[in-house]
Amino acid sequence: MKSYLITGSSRGIGLEMTRQLIGSHENITIFAAARSTTNPEFQELLQKYPTRLIHVQVDVTSDDSIKKAASLVAAKLDGRGLDILINNAGVLSYGRIQDMDDLEETFQTNVSGVHSMIRAFLPLMRKGEQKKILNISSSLGSISMQSTNYLMAVPSYKISKAALNMLTVVYAYELKEEDFTIFCVSPGWLKTDMGSENADLPVSTGVASVLKILSEADKKDNGHFFNIEVPGWERYDGNQISW
Amino acid sequence: MKSYLITGSSRGIGLEMTRQLIGSHENITIFAAARSTTNPEFQELLQKYPTRLIHVQVDVTSDDSIKKAASLVAAKLDGRGLDILINNAGVLSYGRIQDMDDLEETFQTNVSGVHSMIRAFLPLMRKGEQKKILNISSSLGSISMQSTNYLMAVPSYKISKAALNMLTVVYAYELKEEDFTIFCVSPGWLKTDMGSENADLPVSTGVASVLKILSEADKKDNGHFFNIEVPGWERYDGNQISW
Repeated sequence: MKSYLITGSSRGIGLEMTRQLIGSHENITIFAAARSTTNPEFQELLQKYPTRLIHVQVDVTSDDSIKKAASLVAAKLDGRGLDILINNAGVLSYGRIQDMDDLEETFQTNVSGVHSMIRAFLPLMRKGEQKKILNISSSLGSISMQSTNYLMAVPSYKISKAALNMLTVVYAYELKEEDFTIFCVSPGWLKTDMGSENADLPVSTGVASVLKILSEADKKDNGHFFNIEVPGWERYDGNQISW
Repeated sequence: MKSYLITGSSRGIGLEMTRQLIGSHENITIFAAARSTTNPEFQELLQKYPTRLIHVQVDVTSDDSIKKAASLVAAKLDGRGLDILINNAGVLSYGRIQDMDDLEETFQTNVSGVHSMIRAFLPLMRKGEQKKILNISSSLGSISMQSTNYLMAVPSYKISKAALNMLTVVYAYELKEEDFTIFCVSPGWLKTDMGSENADLPVSTGVASVLKILSEADKKDNGHFFNIEVPGWERYDGNQISW
Protein backbone atom coordinates (compact mmCIF):
# COMPACT_ATOMS: atom_id res chain seq x y z
CA MET A 1 0.00 0.00 0.00
CA LYS A 2 1.43 3.36 -1.11
CA SER A 3 0.13 6.43 0.70
CA TYR A 4 -0.19 10.00 -0.58
CA LEU A 5 -1.29 13.26 0.96
CA ILE A 6 -2.35 16.00 -1.45
CA THR A 7 -3.25 19.53 -0.33
CA GLY A 8 -5.79 21.59 -2.21
CA SER A 9 -7.36 18.36 -3.45
CA SER A 10 -10.96 19.55 -3.76
CA ARG A 11 -10.56 21.32 -7.08
CA GLY A 12 -8.35 22.20 -10.02
CA ILE A 13 -4.96 20.51 -10.26
CA GLY A 14 -5.26 18.88 -6.82
CA LEU A 15 -8.59 17.26 -7.65
CA GLU A 16 -7.29 15.98 -10.98
CA MET A 17 -4.13 14.56 -9.37
CA THR A 18 -6.31 12.82 -6.81
CA ARG A 19 -8.61 11.43 -9.51
CA GLN A 20 -5.81 10.15 -11.74
CA LEU A 21 -3.82 8.67 -8.86
CA ILE A 22 -6.68 6.91 -7.12
CA GLY A 23 -7.79 5.37 -10.40
CA SER A 24 -4.30 4.26 -11.37
CA HIS A 25 -3.81 1.40 -8.93
CA GLU A 26 -5.78 -0.45 -6.25
CA ASN A 27 -2.80 -0.37 -3.95
CA ILE A 28 -2.97 3.37 -3.30
CA THR A 29 -4.40 5.32 -0.36
CA ILE A 30 -4.82 9.07 -0.69
CA PHE A 31 -5.35 11.57 2.09
CA ALA A 32 -7.16 14.31 0.24
CA ALA A 33 -6.52 17.48 2.20
CA ALA A 34 -8.87 20.38 1.59
CA ARG A 35 -10.66 23.03 3.58
CA SER A 36 -14.07 21.72 2.56
CA THR A 37 -15.90 19.10 0.53
CA THR A 38 -18.45 21.43 -1.02
CA ASN A 39 -17.33 20.80 -4.61
CA PRO A 40 -19.71 18.10 -6.00
CA GLU A 41 -16.95 16.60 -8.17
CA PHE A 42 -14.82 16.08 -5.07
CA GLN A 43 -17.78 14.59 -3.15
CA GLU A 44 -18.43 12.19 -6.02
CA LEU A 45 -14.84 11.01 -6.01
CA LEU A 46 -14.88 10.53 -2.22
CA GLN A 47 -18.02 8.41 -2.55
CA LYS A 48 -16.56 6.33 -5.37
CA TYR A 49 -13.53 5.33 -3.26
CA PRO A 50 -14.88 5.25 0.30
CA THR A 51 -11.95 3.33 1.81
CA ARG A 52 -8.87 4.34 -0.16
CA LEU A 53 -9.68 8.06 -0.52
CA ILE A 54 -9.90 9.88 2.79
CA HIS A 55 -10.80 13.53 3.12
CA VAL A 56 -8.72 15.37 5.71
CA GLN A 57 -9.86 18.82 6.76
CA VAL A 58 -6.82 21.11 6.35
CA ASP A 59 -6.38 24.85 6.07
CA VAL A 60 -2.66 25.20 5.30
CA THR A 61 -2.58 28.66 6.91
CA SER A 62 -3.64 27.18 10.26
CA ASP A 63 -0.99 25.29 12.22
CA ASP A 64 -3.74 24.00 14.44
CA SER A 65 -5.66 22.41 11.58
CA ILE A 66 -2.43 20.92 10.20
CA LYS A 67 -1.54 19.35 13.55
CA LYS A 68 -5.00 17.82 13.85
CA ALA A 69 -4.69 16.47 10.32
CA ALA A 70 -1.30 14.93 11.08
CA SER A 71 -2.77 13.13 14.11
CA LEU A 72 -5.69 11.84 12.05
CA VAL A 73 -3.44 10.61 9.23
CA ALA A 74 -1.09 8.94 11.74
CA ALA A 75 -4.04 7.13 13.29
CA LYS A 76 -5.32 5.94 9.90
CA LEU A 77 -1.85 4.75 8.85
CA ASP A 78 -1.72 2.75 12.07
CA GLY A 79 2.06 2.59 12.48
CA ARG A 80 2.99 2.80 8.81
CA GLY A 81 4.58 5.92 7.33
CA LEU A 82 3.32 8.45 4.81
CA ASP A 83 5.07 7.84 1.48
CA ILE A 84 4.42 10.91 -0.66
CA LEU A 85 3.42 14.47 0.20
CA ILE A 86 2.19 16.75 -2.58
CA ASN A 87 1.96 20.42 -1.60
CA ASN A 88 -0.42 21.73 -4.18
CA ALA A 89 -2.68 24.25 -2.37
CA GLY A 90 -2.04 27.75 -3.61
CA VAL A 91 -3.59 31.12 -4.33
CA LEU A 92 -3.09 33.64 -7.15
CA SER A 93 -4.25 37.19 -7.78
CA TYR A 94 -3.83 39.75 -10.55
CA GLY A 95 -2.62 43.33 -10.48
CA ARG A 96 0.37 45.65 -10.73
CA ILE A 97 3.14 45.24 -8.15
CA GLN A 98 2.82 48.90 -7.15
CA ASP A 99 -0.79 48.14 -6.12
CA MET A 100 -0.04 44.76 -4.52
CA ASP A 101 -1.89 44.39 -1.20
CA ASP A 102 -1.85 40.62 -0.72
CA LEU A 103 1.85 39.80 -0.54
CA GLU A 104 1.87 38.41 3.00
CA GLU A 105 -1.46 36.67 2.58
CA THR A 106 -0.23 34.92 -0.57
CA PHE A 107 3.05 34.04 1.12
CA GLN A 108 1.17 32.45 4.04
CA THR A 109 -0.63 30.00 1.79
CA ASN A 110 1.96 29.38 -0.94
CA VAL A 111 5.11 29.26 1.20
CA SER A 112 4.47 29.15 4.96
CA GLY A 113 1.68 26.65 4.33
CA VAL A 114 4.12 24.31 2.60
CA HIS A 115 6.66 24.73 5.39
CA SER A 116 4.02 23.94 8.03
CA MET A 117 2.86 20.86 6.13
CA ILE A 118 6.39 19.49 5.70
CA ARG A 119 7.26 20.08 9.36
CA ALA A 120 4.09 18.49 10.65
CA PHE A 121 4.32 15.42 8.41
CA LEU A 122 8.08 14.84 8.62
CA PRO A 123 7.82 12.31 11.47
CA LEU A 124 5.31 10.25 9.45
CA MET A 125 7.33 10.60 6.24
CA ARG A 126 10.51 9.41 7.92
CA LYS A 127 8.68 6.10 8.38
CA GLY A 128 7.54 6.10 4.74
CA GLU A 129 9.10 4.04 1.98
CA GLN A 130 9.21 6.69 -0.74
CA LYS A 131 10.13 9.87 1.12
CA LYS A 132 9.07 12.06 -1.80
CA ILE A 133 7.87 15.62 -1.34
CA LEU A 134 6.56 17.36 -4.45
CA ASN A 135 5.91 21.09 -4.25
CA ILE A 136 3.73 22.45 -7.02
CA SER A 137 5.51 25.58 -8.18
CA SER A 138 5.30 27.53 -11.43
CA SER A 139 7.58 28.76 -14.19
CA LEU A 140 6.16 32.17 -13.22
CA GLY A 141 8.33 31.75 -10.10
CA SER A 142 11.48 31.53 -12.24
CA ILE A 143 13.35 34.84 -11.91
CA SER A 144 15.37 34.01 -15.04
CA MET A 145 12.17 33.68 -17.04
CA GLN A 146 10.79 37.11 -16.15
CA SER A 147 12.19 38.43 -19.42
CA THR A 148 9.43 36.42 -21.11
CA ASN A 149 6.87 36.38 -18.26
CA TYR A 150 6.88 40.06 -17.27
CA LEU A 151 3.50 40.74 -18.84
CA MET A 152 1.82 38.18 -16.57
CA ALA A 153 0.65 40.53 -13.81
CA VAL A 154 0.62 38.16 -10.83
CA PRO A 155 3.31 39.76 -8.63
CA SER A 156 2.51 38.17 -5.26
CA TYR A 157 2.22 34.76 -6.92
CA LYS A 158 5.60 35.16 -8.66
CA ILE A 159 7.31 36.28 -5.44
CA SER A 160 5.76 33.44 -3.43
CA LYS A 161 6.78 30.82 -5.99
CA ALA A 162 10.39 32.08 -6.10
CA ALA A 163 10.39 31.81 -2.30
CA LEU A 164 8.83 28.33 -2.50
CA ASN A 165 11.57 27.26 -4.89
CA MET A 166 14.24 28.31 -2.40
CA LEU A 167 12.37 26.60 0.45
CA THR A 168 12.27 23.43 -1.64
CA VAL A 169 16.01 23.49 -2.29
CA VAL A 170 16.92 24.25 1.35
CA TYR A 171 14.76 21.34 2.52
CA ALA A 172 16.26 19.14 -0.20
CA TYR A 173 19.80 19.73 1.02
CA GLU A 174 18.90 19.40 4.69
CA LEU A 175 17.08 16.08 4.29
CA LYS A 176 19.29 14.61 1.58
CA GLU A 177 21.18 12.35 3.98
CA GLU A 178 17.86 10.91 5.15
CA ASP A 179 17.15 9.77 1.58
CA PHE A 180 14.38 12.23 0.85
CA THR A 181 13.55 13.37 -2.68
CA ILE A 182 12.20 16.93 -2.42
CA PHE A 183 11.59 18.80 -5.64
CA CYS A 184 9.22 21.10 -7.47
CA VAL A 185 7.33 20.96 -10.73
CA SER A 186 5.71 23.64 -12.85
CA PRO A 187 2.44 22.00 -13.94
CA GLY A 188 1.99 24.23 -16.99
CA TRP A 189 -0.80 26.66 -17.72
CA LEU A 190 -3.89 24.48 -17.25
CA LYS A 191 -7.61 25.06 -17.79
CA THR A 192 -8.71 25.27 -14.14
CA ASP A 193 -10.63 27.99 -12.30
CA MET A 194 -7.25 29.53 -11.47
CA GLY A 195 -5.79 29.04 -14.95
CA SER A 196 -8.97 30.11 -16.83
CA GLU A 197 -10.34 28.82 -20.12
CA ASN A 198 -7.57 30.67 -22.01
CA ALA A 199 -4.94 28.30 -20.64
CA ASP A 200 -2.76 26.12 -22.85
CA LEU A 201 -3.79 22.62 -21.81
CA PRO A 202 -6.62 20.56 -20.36
CA VAL A 203 -5.93 19.96 -16.67
CA SER A 204 -5.74 16.20 -17.31
CA THR A 205 -2.82 16.64 -19.74
CA GLY A 206 -0.70 18.72 -17.37
CA VAL A 207 -1.50 16.52 -14.39
CA ALA A 208 -0.62 13.33 -16.26
CA SER A 209 2.85 14.73 -16.91
CA VAL A 210 3.27 15.91 -13.30
CA LEU A 211 2.40 12.43 -12.03
CA LYS A 212 4.78 10.79 -14.49
CA ILE A 213 7.59 13.05 -13.22
CA LEU A 214 6.62 12.21 -9.63
CA SER A 215 6.62 8.48 -10.22
CA GLU A 216 9.99 8.54 -12.00
CA ALA A 217 11.68 10.95 -9.57
CA ASP A 218 14.39 9.49 -7.37
CA LYS A 219 17.19 10.74 -5.17
CA LYS A 220 19.19 12.18 -8.05
CA ASP A 221 16.29 14.60 -8.62
CA ASN A 222 16.40 15.97 -5.08
CA GLY A 223 16.28 19.79 -5.23
CA HIS A 224 15.30 19.97 -8.92
CA PHE A 225 12.65 22.09 -10.65
CA PHE A 226 10.94 20.31 -13.53
CA ASN A 227 8.85 21.44 -16.43
CA ILE A 228 6.07 19.15 -17.63
CA GLU A 229 6.54 17.39 -20.97
CA VAL A 230 3.81 17.65 -23.57
CA PRO A 231 4.49 16.54 -27.17
CA GLY A 232 4.01 19.37 -29.66
CA TRP A 233 4.55 22.13 -27.06
CA GLU A 234 7.99 23.69 -27.18
CA ARG A 235 7.41 25.42 -23.84
CA TYR A 236 6.61 22.11 -22.12
CA ASP A 237 9.82 20.24 -22.81
CA GLY A 238 10.20 18.18 -19.62
CA ASN A 239 13.56 19.77 -18.82
CA GLN A 240 14.69 21.43 -15.64
CA ILE A 241 13.67 25.07 -15.34
CA SER A 242 16.32 27.68 -14.51
CA TRP A 243 15.74 29.51 -11.24
CA MET B 1 21.73 68.44 -4.61
CA LYS B 2 21.39 64.65 -4.85
CA SER B 3 19.09 63.00 -2.29
CA TYR B 4 19.29 59.49 -0.84
CA LEU B 5 17.13 57.52 1.55
CA ILE B 6 18.79 54.53 3.24
CA THR B 7 16.92 52.12 5.50
CA GLY B 8 18.66 50.37 8.38
CA SER B 9 21.14 53.23 8.49
CA SER B 10 21.95 53.18 12.21
CA ARG B 11 24.41 50.26 12.07
CA GLY B 12 26.27 47.74 9.96
CA ILE B 13 26.19 48.12 6.20
CA GLY B 14 23.59 50.90 6.32
CA LEU B 15 25.66 53.03 8.68
CA GLU B 16 28.79 52.54 6.60
CA MET B 17 26.96 53.43 3.36
CA THR B 18 25.66 56.55 5.06
CA ARG B 19 29.14 57.47 6.33
CA GLN B 20 30.89 56.95 2.99
CA LEU B 21 28.19 58.71 0.97
CA ILE B 22 27.82 61.77 3.19
CA GLY B 23 31.57 62.24 3.24
CA SER B 24 31.95 61.80 -0.51
CA HIS B 25 30.44 65.07 -1.69
CA GLU B 26 28.98 68.26 -0.23
CA ASN B 27 26.14 68.16 -2.68
CA ILE B 28 24.46 65.16 -1.06
CA THR B 29 21.51 64.95 1.33
CA ILE B 30 20.77 61.66 3.07
CA PHE B 31 17.59 60.64 4.81
CA ALA B 32 18.92 58.10 7.28
CA ALA B 33 16.00 55.83 8.09
CA ALA B 34 16.27 53.76 11.26
CA ARG B 35 14.06 52.71 14.13
CA SER B 36 16.21 54.53 16.65
CA THR B 37 19.32 56.65 17.12
CA THR B 38 20.69 54.79 20.14
CA ASN B 39 23.90 53.68 18.42
CA PRO B 40 26.58 56.26 19.46
CA GLU B 41 28.37 55.95 16.08
CA PHE B 42 25.15 56.90 14.33
CA GLN B 43 24.56 59.81 16.74
CA GLU B 44 28.06 61.08 16.10
CA LEU B 45 27.54 61.02 12.35
CA LEU B 46 24.22 62.84 12.69
CA GLN B 47 25.92 65.54 14.77
CA LYS B 48 28.77 65.90 12.30
CA TYR B 49 26.41 66.62 9.39
CA PRO B 50 23.47 68.43 11.05
CA THR B 51 21.94 69.79 7.84
CA ARG B 52 22.70 67.24 5.12
CA LEU B 53 22.12 64.10 7.19
CA ILE B 54 18.58 63.78 8.48
CA HIS B 55 17.38 60.95 10.69
CA VAL B 56 13.94 59.64 9.78
CA GLN B 57 12.21 57.35 12.23
CA VAL B 58 11.16 54.26 10.22
CA ASP B 59 10.18 50.73 11.16
CA VAL B 60 9.87 49.01 7.76
CA THR B 61 7.32 46.54 9.17
CA SER B 62 4.95 49.41 10.00
CA ASP B 63 3.06 50.99 7.11
CA ASP B 64 2.09 53.78 9.44
CA SER B 65 5.68 54.70 10.27
CA ILE B 66 6.60 54.52 6.57
CA LYS B 67 3.78 56.86 5.60
CA LYS B 68 4.79 59.37 8.25
CA ALA B 69 8.39 59.15 7.04
CA ALA B 70 7.32 59.77 3.43
CA SER B 71 5.44 62.92 4.51
CA LEU B 72 8.43 64.17 6.47
CA VAL B 73 10.84 63.53 3.59
CA ALA B 74 8.46 65.21 1.12
CA ALA B 75 8.30 68.29 3.37
CA LYS B 76 12.10 68.46 3.68
CA LEU B 77 12.56 68.08 -0.09
CA ASP B 78 10.16 70.98 -0.56
CA GLY B 79 8.91 70.12 -4.04
CA ARG B 80 12.00 68.31 -5.26
CA GLY B 81 12.06 64.54 -5.76
CA LEU B 82 13.93 61.76 -3.98
CA ASP B 83 16.74 60.55 -6.24
CA ILE B 84 17.94 57.26 -4.77
CA LEU B 85 16.32 54.74 -2.43
CA ILE B 86 18.50 52.08 -0.79
CA ASN B 87 16.55 49.29 0.88
CA ASN B 88 19.11 47.90 3.25
CA ALA B 89 17.24 47.05 6.48
CA GLY B 90 17.17 43.31 7.04
CA VAL B 91 17.21 40.54 9.61
CA LEU B 92 18.91 37.14 9.72
CA SER B 93 18.71 34.14 12.02
CA TYR B 94 20.38 30.75 12.23
CA GLY B 95 18.94 27.25 12.44
CA ARG B 96 17.74 24.23 10.50
CA ILE B 97 14.79 24.69 8.13
CA GLN B 98 12.85 21.94 9.89
CA ASP B 99 13.02 24.08 13.07
CA MET B 100 12.36 27.41 11.34
CA ASP B 101 9.89 29.52 13.32
CA ASP B 102 10.57 33.00 11.94
CA LEU B 103 9.74 32.67 8.26
CA GLU B 104 6.89 35.19 8.17
CA GLU B 105 8.63 37.58 10.55
CA THR B 106 11.77 37.57 8.37
CA PHE B 107 9.65 37.97 5.24
CA GLN B 108 7.91 41.01 6.75
CA THR B 109 11.17 42.89 7.23
CA ASN B 110 13.23 41.66 4.28
CA VAL B 111 10.52 41.58 1.59
CA SER B 112 7.25 43.27 2.61
CA GLY B 113 9.28 46.07 4.19
CA VAL B 114 10.98 46.76 0.86
CA HIS B 115 7.65 46.65 -0.98
CA SER B 116 6.11 49.11 1.50
CA MET B 117 9.07 51.48 1.18
CA ILE B 118 9.02 51.45 -2.63
CA ARG B 119 5.25 52.01 -2.75
CA ALA B 120 5.33 54.85 -0.26
CA PHE B 121 8.26 56.66 -1.88
CA LEU B 122 7.33 56.11 -5.54
CA PRO B 123 5.52 59.47 -5.88
CA LEU B 124 8.62 61.29 -4.58
CA MET B 125 10.97 59.17 -6.70
CA ARG B 126 9.00 59.90 -9.87
CA LYS B 127 10.01 63.52 -9.36
CA GLY B 128 13.66 62.55 -8.74
CA GLU B 129 16.44 62.86 -11.29
CA GLN B 130 18.13 59.49 -10.74
CA LYS B 131 15.20 57.11 -10.19
CA LYS B 132 17.51 54.44 -8.76
CA ILE B 133 16.31 51.83 -6.29
CA LEU B 134 18.98 49.55 -4.83
CA ASN B 135 17.82 46.54 -2.83
CA ILE B 136 20.50 44.98 -0.67
CA SER B 137 20.19 41.25 -1.32
CA SER B 138 22.65 38.40 -0.80
CA SER B 139 24.27 35.63 -2.78
CA LEU B 140 22.68 33.41 -0.09
CA GLY B 141 19.41 34.28 -1.85
CA SER B 142 20.66 32.75 -5.10
CA ILE B 143 18.91 29.40 -5.57
CA SER B 144 21.54 28.35 -8.13
CA MET B 145 24.28 28.87 -5.56
CA GLN B 146 22.75 26.59 -2.90
CA SER B 147 25.03 23.81 -4.12
CA THR B 148 27.87 25.80 -2.53
CA ASN B 149 25.87 27.65 0.17
CA TYR B 150 23.85 24.77 1.63
CA LEU B 151 25.94 24.61 4.81
CA MET B 152 25.00 28.20 5.69
CA ALA B 153 22.05 27.51 7.99
CA VAL B 154 20.03 30.70 7.50
CA PRO B 155 16.86 29.29 5.89
CA SER B 156 14.43 32.17 6.48
CA TYR B 157 17.06 34.65 5.26
CA LYS B 158 17.70 32.64 2.09
CA ILE B 159 13.98 32.31 1.33
CA SER B 160 13.37 36.02 1.97
CA LYS B 161 16.27 37.08 -0.26
CA ALA B 162 15.11 34.83 -3.14
CA ALA B 163 11.69 36.47 -2.75
CA LEU B 164 13.30 39.93 -2.63
CA ASN B 165 15.16 39.17 -5.86
CA MET B 166 11.88 38.36 -7.62
CA LEU B 167 10.25 41.46 -6.15
CA THR B 168 13.15 43.53 -7.51
CA VAL B 169 12.81 42.10 -11.00
CA VAL B 170 9.01 42.49 -11.11
CA TYR B 171 9.33 46.13 -10.06
CA ALA B 172 12.15 46.61 -12.58
CA TYR B 173 9.97 45.47 -15.48
CA GLU B 174 6.91 47.38 -14.30
CA LEU B 175 8.73 50.72 -13.90
CA LYS B 176 11.13 50.35 -16.82
CA GLU B 177 9.13 52.65 -19.10
CA GLU B 178 9.29 55.34 -16.41
CA ASP B 179 13.11 55.26 -16.64
CA PHE B 180 13.71 53.66 -13.25
CA THR B 181 16.83 51.59 -12.52
CA ILE B 182 15.85 48.97 -9.94
CA PHE B 183 18.40 46.31 -9.07
CA CYS B 184 19.98 44.34 -6.28
CA VAL B 185 23.49 43.83 -4.99
CA SER B 186 25.05 41.19 -2.78
CA PRO B 187 27.33 43.22 -0.51
CA GLY B 188 29.57 40.27 0.34
CA TRP B 189 30.18 38.72 3.72
CA LEU B 190 31.17 41.74 5.81
CA LYS B 191 32.40 42.16 9.38
CA THR B 192 29.25 43.64 10.92
CA ASP B 193 27.20 42.51 13.93
CA MET B 194 25.13 40.44 11.49
CA GLY B 195 28.12 39.14 9.54
CA SER B 196 30.31 38.45 12.61
CA GLU B 197 34.06 38.79 13.00
CA ASN B 198 34.58 35.63 10.90
CA ALA B 199 33.41 37.43 7.77
CA ASP B 200 35.56 37.89 4.66
CA LEU B 201 35.91 41.66 4.46
CA PRO B 202 35.87 44.85 6.50
CA VAL B 203 32.50 46.54 6.11
CA SER B 204 34.19 49.54 4.47
CA THR B 205 35.56 47.39 1.63
CA GLY B 206 32.24 45.79 0.75
CA VAL B 207 30.34 49.06 1.04
CA ALA B 208 32.83 50.92 -1.18
CA SER B 209 32.15 48.40 -3.94
CA VAL B 210 28.36 48.56 -3.44
CA LEU B 211 28.46 52.36 -3.76
CA LYS B 212 30.62 52.18 -6.89
CA ILE B 213 28.09 49.81 -8.47
CA LEU B 214 25.27 52.16 -7.43
CA SER B 215 26.95 55.21 -8.88
CA GLU B 216 27.73 53.49 -12.18
CA ALA B 217 24.36 51.75 -12.55
CA ASP B 218 22.11 53.02 -15.30
CA LYS B 219 19.01 51.90 -17.16
CA LYS B 220 20.77 48.98 -18.84
CA ASP B 221 21.26 47.50 -15.33
CA ASN B 222 17.56 47.57 -14.49
CA GLY B 223 16.58 44.19 -12.98
CA HIS B 224 20.16 42.97 -12.48
CA PHE B 225 21.76 41.26 -9.46
CA PHE B 226 25.37 42.29 -8.91
CA ASN B 227 28.21 40.86 -6.93
CA ILE B 228 30.69 43.29 -5.38
CA GLU B 229 34.17 43.47 -6.88
CA VAL B 230 37.19 43.10 -4.59
CA PRO B 231 40.66 42.54 -6.07
CA GLY B 232 42.20 39.28 -4.91
CA TRP B 233 38.85 37.65 -4.05
CA GLU B 234 37.63 35.20 -6.67
CA ARG B 235 34.19 35.06 -5.08
CA TYR B 236 33.80 38.86 -5.35
CA ASP B 237 34.20 39.27 -9.09
CA GLY B 238 31.81 42.16 -9.77
CA ASN B 239 29.77 40.05 -12.19
CA GLN B 240 26.06 39.39 -12.22
CA ILE B 241 24.93 36.61 -9.90
CA SER B 242 22.74 33.84 -11.29
CA TRP B 243 19.31 33.59 -9.66
